[in-house]
Amino acid sequence: VSAAALIAIDWGSTHRRIYVLDGDGDVLARRHDARGVTAPGPMDHAADVAAIRGEFQAAHGALPVLAAGMVGSARGWVEVPYLPCPAGLDALAGALHWVEPGGTAIVPGLCRDASGPADVMRGEEVQLLGAVAAGLVPADGLMCQPGTHCKWARLAGGAITDFRTRMTGELFALLRQHSLLGPMMAGAVADGPAFRDGVAAALAGNAAGDLLAALFGVRAAVLCGQRAAADGAAYVSGLLIGSDVAAQGLGPGDTVHLLADASLGALYGAAIGATGARVVAVDSEAAFTAGAAALFSRISAQVPPLLPPHQ
Amino acid sequence: VSAAALIAIDWGSTHRRIYVLDGDGDVLARRHDARGVTAPGPMDHAADVAAIRGEFQAAHGALPVLAAGMVGSARGWVEVPYLPCPAGLDALAGALHWVEPGGTAIVPGLCRDASGPADVMRGEEVQLLGAVAAGLVPADGLMCQPGTHCKWARLAGGAITDFRTRMTGELFALLRQHSLLGPMMAGAVADGPAFRDGVAAALAGNAAGDLLAALFGVRAAVLCGQRAAADGAAYVSGLLIGSDVAAQGLGPGDTVHLLADASLGALYGAAIGATGARVVAVDSEAAFTAGAAALFSRISAQVPPLLPPHQ
Repeated sequence: VSAAALIAIDWGSTHRRIYVLDGDGDVLARRHDARGVTAPGPMDHAADVAAIRGEFQAAHGALPVLAAGMVGSARGWVEVPYLPCPAGLDALAGALHWVEPGGTAIVPGLCRDASGPADVMRGEEVQLLGAVAAGLVPADGLMCQPGTHCKWARLAGGAITDFRTRMTGELFALLRQHSLLGPMMAGAVADGPAFRDGVAAALAGNAAGDLLAALFGVRAAVLCGQRAAADGAAYVSGLLIGSDVAAQGLGPGDTVHLLADASLGALYGAAIGATGARVVAVDSEAAFTAGAAALFSRISAQVPPLLPPHQ
Repeated sequence: VSAAALIAIDWGSTHRRIYVLDGDGDVLARRHDARGVTAPGPMDHAADVAAIRGEFQAAHGALPVLAAGMVGSARGWVEVPYLPCPAGLDALAGALHWVEPGGTAIVPGLCRDASGPADVMRGEEVQLLGAVAAGLVPADGLMCQPGTHCKWARLAGGAITDFRTRMTGELFALLRQHSLLGPMMAGAVADGPAFRDGVAAALAGNAAGDLLAALFGVRAAVLCGQRAAADGAAYVSGLLIGSDVAAQGLGPGDTVHLLADASLGALYGAAIGATGARVVAVDSEAAFTAGAAALFSRISAQVPPLLPPHQ
């Protein structure tokens, strides 16, 4: 067994994924919890990191910590400026923000260059570049990371050159929890006829170009007996994911590398497949840990012997 | 002064507008309140109507009541089936639902025919057909009724032949109250540079066809310093209203008859004007009261001498 080299934390808004990695990015230990940066109650990030380091110290020794995601936002530990695209691993490694010199670094997020519409990411960049570093995806291609805010990133020469974020998952949650469609969205969401109907409506252009009408139409279709209320959630999911996919302008000949959990992976896979594009599933955990290890390998010469916690 | 002929109630989800009208639709008295069908607490519609009738009885006598809107929905007094388009005043008058024979009738809502996407309205049909009856709009044309659910209706030969509803106002409220954009949507919404920027982005097609990305882009633009957070609400309003207008495919040579309050009227007027189409403002209260009076004139022969309340 190779020696532990670092603790990598994918520290998002709601959840946190913690990995003890060796220098090759192999996972020696892992733990997930719900202490994202928007978790209720006060948050002392330094104390949290000290506790995490302490938790693994007996088995793996005192380790440097690399944290990525919303922990580097204004709502996190410290606001780390966005790095503009194009950006690869070398640029990211050079822009790490040391909150505890030699002990804990935060990965900067990325922003699009200022020539077009603004866009930002925090955390996804480690997955994207890690997938390339691990050979899970080619150095040039289109990648999709579904979620609350779905990211579509272009990679060229192993760097992230451009990306676009859509509010797909957040809008679905808003509609289900707070809108007039809520009572019709109590059913399950899975890849099936209702989901595919929503995707097809979106890809046909009448929903992607007129989402505001398509959404009201869900309610009208139930009131008019044209759709079962039990199918509402799956249909709305299909409309939104279909609109997300339609806006990418995919078609036969395109390949999308999809980094997703099983549930969203199945939905996005079906919607992307409906355009004729090819879907390649990528293990997003393996991508993240490879990215963290690749960043660490670029800075390990800079990391002095680790200071004891709290010094 | 001509004699009172009826009480007309525009009875929506959240509000209720009550008018005492003479046979020509002139308003002899009016009152607005917040007892819409979704008002908190128990609602006894019959008792409410008896109280309203009693309120005006001393000055105007015992009057028949014509109620339109969500009062005729499953969440209202009684669910009145939708009448399919095309529908004009004669069809509506023939399908009134008498909840208190000779005393109180509910106007049915309309649905699109089953050949295309489903859509429904309740209450707007009285305004639309009343506007024609009062000569406020031509018998053939395009009408727009902004609101929580914005309606766009085609009239031909004085009948409503087709319409489309968009969730524009509801989505704005959802985003402001419950989304990650909320903190950037605390500012005022008015027709100004930020609103016009949103409209322009929507009309340029990159937002209307990709609203999910345009919405996330609002947050990104603020984070990247490209837009002031104080302008967020006006910009999002411009994006949504612009997307609503863009989906209509308007251009120079088109005329839109706009039935709206002053605030939404200014916003929709600016967005419609940006397409090159002509905007004609229509008094929506005058349209409703004219519609109610026109319906009443078609059924007054059927109305027997009014029964005393509560009999």
